Amino acid sequence: SAAAALAELHPSDIADLLEQADEDRRELLIALLRPQFDAEILAYLSIDLRDEVIERLEPKALAAAVAELDTDDAVDVIQDLDEEAQRSILANLPPEARALVEEGLTYPEYSAGRLMGRQFVSVPEFWTVGGLLDYLRAAATSEDTDLPEEFYDIFVVDPMHRVVGSVPLSRVLRSRRGVKLVDILHEDIHRIAVTMDQEEVARLFRNYGLVSAPVVDAGGRLVGVITVDDVVDVIEEEAEADLLAMGGVGEDDLYRAVLSTARSRFRWLAFNVVTALISATVINQFTNTIAQVVALAALMPIVASMGGNAGTQALTVAVRALATKELTTANAARVIGKEVLVGLLNGMALAGIVGGIAFLWFGQSLIGLVIAGAMVINLICAGLFGGLIPFVLDRMKIDPAVASGVFLTMVTDVVGFLAFLGLATVILL
Amino acid sequence: SAAAALAELHPSDIADLLEQADEDRRELLIALLRPQFDAEILAYLSIDLRDEVIERLEPKALAAAVAELDTDDAVDVIQDLDEEAQRSILANLPPEARALVEEGLTYPEYSAGRLMGRQFVSVPEFWTVGGLLDYLRAAATSEDTDLPEEFYDIFVVDPMHRVVGSVPLSRVLRSRRGVKLVDILHEDIHRIAVTMDQEEVARLFRNYGLVSAPVVDAGGRLVGVITVDDVVDVIEEEAEADLLAMGGVGEDDLYRAVLSTARSRFRWLAFNVVTALISATVINQFTNTIAQVVALAALMPIVASMGGNAGTQALTVAVRALATKELTTANAARVIGKEVLVGLLNGMALAGIVGGIAFLWFGQSLIGLVIAGAMVINLICAGLFGGLIPFVLDRMKIDPAVASGVFLTMVTDVVGFLAFLGLATVILL
Ligand SMILES: [Mg+2]
Ligand SMILES: [Mg+2]
Ligand SMILES: [Mg+2]
Ligand SMILES: [Mg+2]
Ligand SMILES: [Mg+2]
Ligand SMILES: [Mg+2]
Ligand SMILES: [Mg+2]
Ligand SMILES: [Mg+2]
Ligand SMILES: [Mg+2]
Ligand SMILES: [Mg+2]
Ligand SMILES: [Mg+2]
Ligand SMILES: [Mg+2]
Ligand SMILES: [Mg+2]
Repeated sequence: SAAAALAELHPSDIADLLEQADEDRRELLIALLRPQFDAEILAYLSIDLRDEVIERLEPKALAAAVAELDTDDAVDVIQDLDEEAQRSILANLPPEARALVEEGLTYPEYSAGRLMGRQFVSVPEFWTVGGLLDYLRAAATSEDTDLPEEFYDIFVVDPMHRVVGSVPLSRVLRSRRGVKLVDILHEDIHRIAVTMDQEEVARLFRNYGLVSAPVVDAGGRLVGVITVDDVVDVIEEEAEADLLAMGGVGEDDLYRAVLSTARSRFRWLAFNVVTALISATVINQFTNTIAQVVALAALMPIVASMGGNAGTQALTVAVRALATKELTTANAARVIGKEVLVGLLNGMALAGIVGGIAFLWFGQSLIGLVIAGAMVINLICAGLFGGLIPFVLDRMKIDPAVASGVFLTMVTDVVGFLAFLGLATVILL
Repeated sequence: SAAAALAELHPSDIADLLEQADEDRRELLIALLRPQFDAEILAYLSIDLRDEVIERLEPKALAAAVAELDTDDAVDVIQDLDEEAQRSILANLPPEARALVEEGLTYPEYSAGRLMGRQFVSVPEFWTVGGLLDYLRAAATSEDTDLPEEFYDIFVVDPMHRVVGSVPLSRVLRSRRGVKLVDILHEDIHRIAVTMDQEEVARLFRNYGLVSAPVVDAGGRLVGVITVDDVVDVIEEEAEADLLAMGGVGEDDLYRAVLSTARSRFRWLAFNVVTALISATVINQFTNTIAQVVALAALMPIVASMGGNAGTQALTVAVRALATKELTTANAARVIGKEVLVGLLNGMALAGIVGGIAFLWFGQSLIGLVIAGAMVINLICAGLFGGLIPFVLDRMKIDPAVASGVFLTMVTDVVGFLAFLGLATVILL
């Protein structure tokens, strides 16, 4: 049957099916899934569709499904729901699961505390490999085991439950039963503070090739473990957020309704209207010049738009380098200085090309000279501000991916129109 | 000493130091590192700095350092070097390492074959957990072991070396010695074809939360294993490539010299000059209109730039959804249709605002009407083409992140100027 075929699929594939479906099909799929709903589907589903799916499930059945999740996945699913749905699920969770999830929700959003799993293997310092194997084998067959389904490192703790070190499983497997864990553990490991930002967590995993890492409280005590599968999600989410922000989109809205999509995108457009009006005011100072040489009206957007394009190149490299912590106060002057030089070089190249074309087109060498000069000026500014704006915003704790573009456009438009029409007024009139 | 302090650092941290340093400092660092150079530093280093570092090392010492790397890391480092450096390292590698690296280089760029490690644990079907433990313990102490330093799954193979299934290490550890591997293996695993594109590999790892996965040849035989640390790098690289491409930057050039940066960015600027000239030609058809109502010159860039902004929003969502395979032929019509509606809604909102301002500014209600009408037309086009262009390019096997922006700007500029100046000619003159 269709329901049986669906049950064969991985939750991430079912989430994809729900996302791809139109509304009728989606309703049908949910009806088929309802009897044995796997809450992991929610973890893979776009946020915009979670509420929709959840509304169609029985609160009790839903809570039962969520209770089956690892705590970190349950927290991940619940944190993004609207408050009513959150309350309804929490109220129906079994007490222990509820306590863990509620504790997870007390950690700041995007922190290690929200990412960490609560099931992990931690053992005392004096254990041997043999003792560990016996413990794991016994725990696996016991009823109320809290062994995680999968784990990658054994964490060795002292009597205060502080992390002493970790032993990768492959190392356990290579060691004879009599070997003491203290003799094979890595001491020099990365302990993650429970309040650490998830981007910082992702950077640690990436730089050091980690597969799992211990999360510790202020006293150094082991409180959870972050595994690489959840870090992969973070990396994707952060990269997606930056890409969308650079394009003026606050959040992924592929599955969102028309009205709410339009509303959320409008804010950025409204900022840009202000920028555009400022440029219009600049142009409006030169109506006398334009009236006398109307060819200028045709040429002036070239200067502004090429400045915007070159500036966007510099800005994109800078935003990315800030995200990867490659652009710092130590090298900012060098990076921005380089962008100015790149702007100068490409400004001269474009000045030659566009100036030549303008001269041939309108038959006036002075028009070619005006646009060439304006191009050089604007591309130098584009390089300077394309590098500078993201760096300054970042120092001011403003996300450079979100805000840089609007400011850059303002600079390259204003400078572009001002330089071109200003030079034209001086040289041509 | 400074050299000893450096040797304490992780290769990724040393790579960061080299990247952050100015040229003098970099030279000093390399001199300190030279006596005991760890080739893993190269794996973490920006491509633009690799050649520079390599030039300052002895070819023999360098080859010895590269020979210490896992095959996949050696392939990763060598594939990006210039040909001379490649030949020099390969010539100095020990024969076995050289054969593995050269084979790795025969697989297509960005394929699973380039990503996979050649050291893995594969065992026959009839083995027990106890037999496996004995084998691993013996191999660990033997001289010529080819056990990987870290591994996460045991791969079970048939006599033809075809993958039968895999056993996560945590499962091995929980099982008693007498248990047969066939009884605890996962059969339903993801076998990766050696030619699979790395983006597809990353998608599998992400969707199914994999930590390692077997790579098989056309006959289903196990030829390598991909581990999640290398997939994390791929995810970062692919996200970076898309972000940079959207900003008109072909490759990360933060550490590249001025001249070569300017040259590589120039190509995209040159495409945009063509677009800008086309817009100028459109405007030039209306010089008569502009000469009569010179306020139009001040207002016309508003329509074009707001179209560009709204179109970029639609385009960014579409490019991202294509990268994640969420935008497909199944939902393309729905997604693009939604973008048109969003464009209509925001077009009307902006038409009201900008039309009102233009009316108050120039005291002519007809000017307000012209810009309002042009705004609605251009934002509808922006939504339509912002969704359509990336989708069509993707179907044509052209990277939508690279090429969409230029085409979109052409549409929103041409439509913006044409609609505004065309309406003005009809309504105002
Ligand atoms: Mg999905
Ligand atoms: Mg998404
Ligand atoms: Mg989430
Ligand atoms: Mg963040
Ligand atoms: Mg988890
Ligand atoms: Mg997960
Ligand atoms: Mg960020
Ligand atoms: Mg680095
Ligand atoms: Mg690489
Ligand atoms: Mg590797
Ligand atoms: Mg690696
Ligand atoms: Mg791509
Ligand atoms: Mg980089």
